[in-house]
Amino acid sequence: MSFEYLTNVPLDQAKKDYMELLRRHGFASCSECIPVRESYGRITCRAVYARINAPHYAASAMDGIALRARDSFGATETTPVTLETDRYVVVDTGDPVPEGCDAVIMVEDTVRNDDGTVTIRAAAAPWQHIRQIGEDICAGEMILPSYYEITPAAIGAMIAGGVTELEVLRRPVVGIIPTGDEIIPPCSDPKPGDILEFNSSIFSAMLQDWGAVPKTYPIVPDRFEAIRDMLLTASEECDMVILNAGSSAGRDDYSTSAIREVGEVLYHGIAIKPGKPAILGCRGSKPILGVPGYPVSGIIVIEELLRPLVDVWFGRESDIRSRTRATLTRPVVSGLKYQEYVRVRMGYVGDRLTASPLPRGSGVVSSFMKADGIIEVPQGTEGYQSGEEVRVRLLNPKKKLKNTLVVIGSHDPLLDELADLIHMENHSLYVSSAHVGSMGGIMAVRRGEAHAAGIHLLDTETGVYNRSYIRKYFPRGGVYLVRCVGRQQGLMLQKGNPLSLRSFEDITKEGLRYVNRQKGSGTRVLMDYLCAKHNVPAEKIYGYEREEMTHNAVAVQIASDSADAGMGIYSTAKLYDLDFLPICVEEYDLLIPGDAWHNAAVRQLIATLQSPAFAARINAMGGYTLDHPGEIIDLV
Amino acid sequence: MSFEYLTNVPLDQAKKDYMELLRRHGFASCSECIPVRESYGRITCRAVYARINAPHYAASAMDGIALRARDSFGATETTPVTLETDRYVVVDTGDPVPEGCDAVIMVEDTVRNDDGTVTIRAAAAPWQHIRQIGEDICAGEMILPSYYEITPAAIGAMIAGGVTELEVLRRPVVGIIPTGDEIIPPCSDPKPGDILEFNSSIFSAMLQDWGAVPKTYPIVPDRFEAIRDMLLTASEECDMVILNAGSSAGRDDYSTSAIREVGEVLYHGIAIKPGKPAILGCRGSKPILGVPGYPVSGIIVIEELLRPLVDVWFGRESDIRSRTRATLTRPVVSGLKYQEYVRVRMGYVGDRLTASPLPRGSGVVSSFMKADGIIEVPQGTEGYQSGEEVRVRLLNPKKKLKNTLVVIGSHDPLLDELADLIHMENHSLYVSSAHVGSMGGIMAVRRGEAHAAGIHLLDTETGVYNRSYIRKYFPRGGVYLVRCVGRQQGLMLQKGNPLSLRSFEDITKEGLRYVNRQKGSGTRVLMDYLCAKHNVPAEKIYGYEREEMTHNAVAVQIASDSADAGMGIYSTAKLYDLDFLPICVEEYDLLIPGDAWHNAAVRQLIATLQSPAFAARINAMGGYTLDHPGEIIDLV
Repeated sequence: MSFEYLTNVPLDQAKKDYMELLRRHGFASCSECIPVRESYGRITCRAVYARINAPHYAASAMDGIALRARDSFGATETTPVTLETDRYVVVDTGDPVPEGCDAVIMVEDTVRNDDGTVTIRAAAAPWQHIRQIGEDICAGEMILPSYYEITPAAIGAMIAGGVTELEVLRRPVVGIIPTGDEIIPPCSDPKPGDILEFNSSIFSAMLQDWGAVPKTYPIVPDRFEAIRDMLLTASEECDMVILNAGSSAGRDDYSTSAIREVGEVLYHGIAIKPGKPAILGCRGSKPILGVPGYPVSGIIVIEELLRPLVDVWFGRESDIRSRTRATLTRPVVSGLKYQEYVRVRMGYVGDRLTASPLPRGSGVVSSFMKADGIIEVPQGTEGYQSGEEVRVRLLNPKKKLKNTLVVIGSHDPLLDELADLIHMENHSLYVSSAHVGSMGGIMAVRRGEAHAAGIHLLDTETGVYNRSYIRKYFPRGGVYLVRCVGRQQGLMLQKGNPLSLRSFEDITKEGLRYVNRQKGSGTRVLMDYLCAKHNVPAEKIYGYEREEMTHNAVAVQIASDSADAGMGIYSTAKLYDLDFLPICVEEYDLLIPGDAWHNAAVRQLIATLQSPAFAARINAMGGYTLDHPGEIIDLV
Repeated sequence: MSFEYLTNVPLDQAKKDYMELLRRHGFASCSECIPVRESYGRITCRAVYARINAPHYAASAMDGIALRARDSFGATETTPVTLETDRYVVVDTGDPVPEGCDAVIMVEDTVRNDDGTVTIRAAAAPWQHIRQIGEDICAGEMILPSYYEITPAAIGAMIAGGVTELEVLRRPVVGIIPTGDEIIPPCSDPKPGDILEFNSSIFSAMLQDWGAVPKTYPIVPDRFEAIRDMLLTASEECDMVILNAGSSAGRDDYSTSAIREVGEVLYHGIAIKPGKPAILGCRGSKPILGVPGYPVSGIIVIEELLRPLVDVWFGRESDIRSRTRATLTRPVVSGLKYQEYVRVRMGYVGDRLTASPLPRGSGVVSSFMKADGIIEVPQGTEGYQSGEEVRVRLLNPKKKLKNTLVVIGSHDPLLDELADLIHMENHSLYVSSAHVGSMGGIMAVRRGEAHAAGIHLLDTETGVYNRSYIRKYFPRGGVYLVRCVGRQQGLMLQKGNPLSLRSFEDITKEGLRYVNRQKGSGTRVLMDYLCAKHNVPAEKIYGYEREEMTHNAVAVQIASDSADAGMGIYSTAKLYDLDFLPICVEEYDLLIPGDAWHNAAVRQLIATLQSPAFAARINAMGGYTLDHPGEIIDLV
């Protein structure tokens, strides 16, 4: 038995060796016989031949009379021929051509006489206006070759060819075994330490997408015997098995030994990141794949190692997703030891397609959802520079990317509502937003990476928002500042204000845990300004270095009693049912580069800002004021 | 009520008016609540917000100890700090951070003492190695906007955000009512005059593809009351209704009046071809579409008039299929009165994408299956010239077209077997073949439209096949002639040879009905040569002008007693269980242009010709001889 513990096998070699091992054990697809009517999207197992001709009888192609062509020979305008009643038969379109007849004359070209005879003034050519037998399909002809995906038209052709059942590749059944003592089924009220089991739902959807049939087993506790027994059951009932979690080399890890007990393990550890602790095993010809518990790792392992097996099963090309080239907006650093997968958000600003790396924490499922593409950094490569052109595997079609408004800048929940309204108004438009703070937004617009940036930057000398920053960072102009909302900033506090804060200066109170926003965000600029103005040194605030990226993230720490206070906006405090100490009202505006001004998505953005629907949503959120949203602000 | 009989409304106006009428009557989609786990591919009806944070508790990101960061302040290599047992808690990755703790130190950085205390040599920063609450998703945040298609990752994000059910657009149920006295359910042994009902199966597959739920009703006879009653039932039970057949203005046509009886008819007759007799009707807010019986007409009417309604239902962009430009290989003639749809077969030979019109008979379902694209000739346009660049709506992805071997030339059933073997050997390769005769094949290669052409052209002066034709039509060379098979030609006769033919000259026998091949085919060249050689004048052969395009089509006429004899190959006679009078053995070779020689598909073609699998299939068919297939033939 070939077995290695926590190997670091290059992905391509692992794939090749795995396939070879499985084939040696007899891995192959199975077929099943199904009715043609239910075969849409299935794949033929062998060539399908017509059983009958279509049409299966010689049919009149016109309304008229059928006759023997010879009987009409000689008929002209000047020498009409009259047919006795036993020499013709009246036929409608689709009627069988009667025995002995070999031509049809259209009703328009016949004269019916009172005695029942018919006069014609032109000869009929043999077989005229007859749909010959087999005109469409001849019996015995191949209708579909092997390994073809069945289309609607193919269904029609098969039925027309007298085929009512056919042999297709059976869909492989893939068992999914979730394991772990801390794992619980999805719910809305988990207890601390519980981990919601959503991997099997993600994997099921992926398997459905590939044409396989997922079968999820109940959650198995971290016990060797329980895992082994479930593996035995699943490998009996399914064609392939996914054993989820417990595949890193930590304590309570029975995956490797359980797979070895029921079958064999080829490799434990693949040179990819995330996804390294994958286990490539099998029981006879049935693959058993040990998949890490972190969702993003699991998704990548299944994509790279299970999907090729499903593709081989269906006899189709692997990885038909399209790739494209895009410009990196930030550097990507990668280790030499692994092939690394970096999810990126993409955008078309002008003619340039950009790719911005998303957070790489392997538990971050929401970032996977936001990904438009994946960069594969090969093993042995250290990564890429910012501005470098890289190859990206697309997760969304290019057309969608071209119709996507890219918003990069300060976070405000109103951006999600705007996105929702824009897409509802025009279903072909999408919005992608990234929260990097106001200064990050200004830089993104300067680098040509964003169609719009939300900013709220206070000029501490003049007390005026945004204008002086725009003048400083865009000395030549070329941008528009568009009015969005006025919003209430203040201190978000625990419900009931248990520490009895009365003014800004109270944040230095003994025992108060503050949670801050990241440097470069407008709210942080405001906070630093307020500290200076009120003579509050940062060192006196416990937690000043603790940084969160959004208003929501700050509010969550307070709501869950992991902090006591943080600067933020009223709408967020309201959403999380927090107390709020108002400090000031600020201008939250949108910065838009001039060359994106006539872009359809930007046009829709402006229209939506001016719409009553936007006003209704903003008012429902609370803490905002509206003063001609969508209007261009004079910068001088 | 706005009603017109057999109108000729331009398509775009009809669509617009129809949608307006339906909206006025309240046409709108419905929603339903489903479990998130089963929501893959569905479309959100409204924005989905997270109900809980993910992670929903502060969790240790490492194996180690949790502590209050303050207790570690001052610890350095030279001034270690020792924590009493009540000052730390051992935690594993994923464990909740205990009450009062705000940092984690990795197990590697701690020294466990015998008395249970732990010594550390570096201070912990507050919140280090802790996955904060809401790091992935914050409660209250928008996870998905309205009208978004649900992806696997979105399912994970929703479950992580505590969402277990959501509201999605219900799939519209579309009723399909087949009508007609002559229509019967699919079977393998229809009687003359029976028409197999396959339209509902085609339409069902199309509807599935668009995300709708098809519901097919039993076949309704041509009776007004029966049709009306079924319309009442279907429009109660479904969201949209297709009434199939009976929509032309002929006899037995109750469609228009039945729709008018249960609701109203907006238009009867649209300026498209095929598809003109479509009926746009409704019962209240429920569309009732009268669809012509000819399958190709029906497919186009449903594509153009029902699909937009399904798209509106799902709130998605209509017609997202890609279009491309291609060079026409033959002219397309169109009437000014209609927008005409012409199905084309496409091919990449070299860098040029070509489009060849397929037969336009509206009953020809097999040609629809072979179509790679559709040309829409606008109303008011007379058509396009051969060689003109036209815009084509793609039915197959470009990548597939690039991997397709285009074979144009003489028909032989072995081409289908070759295609099957090539695709089985390499699933990414496809074969498209058109039967236009040997001369047609030579011309296609000259025009750069084919990768290969099957030819068998007898030089009647030398008795040698193909070589002299190649020298004549390719005086500068640049092509390869590749050995394929020797094949037995002869007269295919009715089973048992009832007319007792003994030699070629017997085809002039009284009462014998001959069926010929088209001019330009190698078999026709052979036939003309044999007539000359044996002094048999064509006028003496009844049916000499009756032309079929393939060996199979000739055999079918004989097998179904619509003809008595025809020239063809042994394998076809055997397939149709006909008698066979051998005449000669001919060379059937493949002509390949030099610039396609290194194309991957051509390489596979040559390899397949040389394979034992090809020999096995050829021998099973009968009537062929093999002599180094795949070898290049010396032309001089």
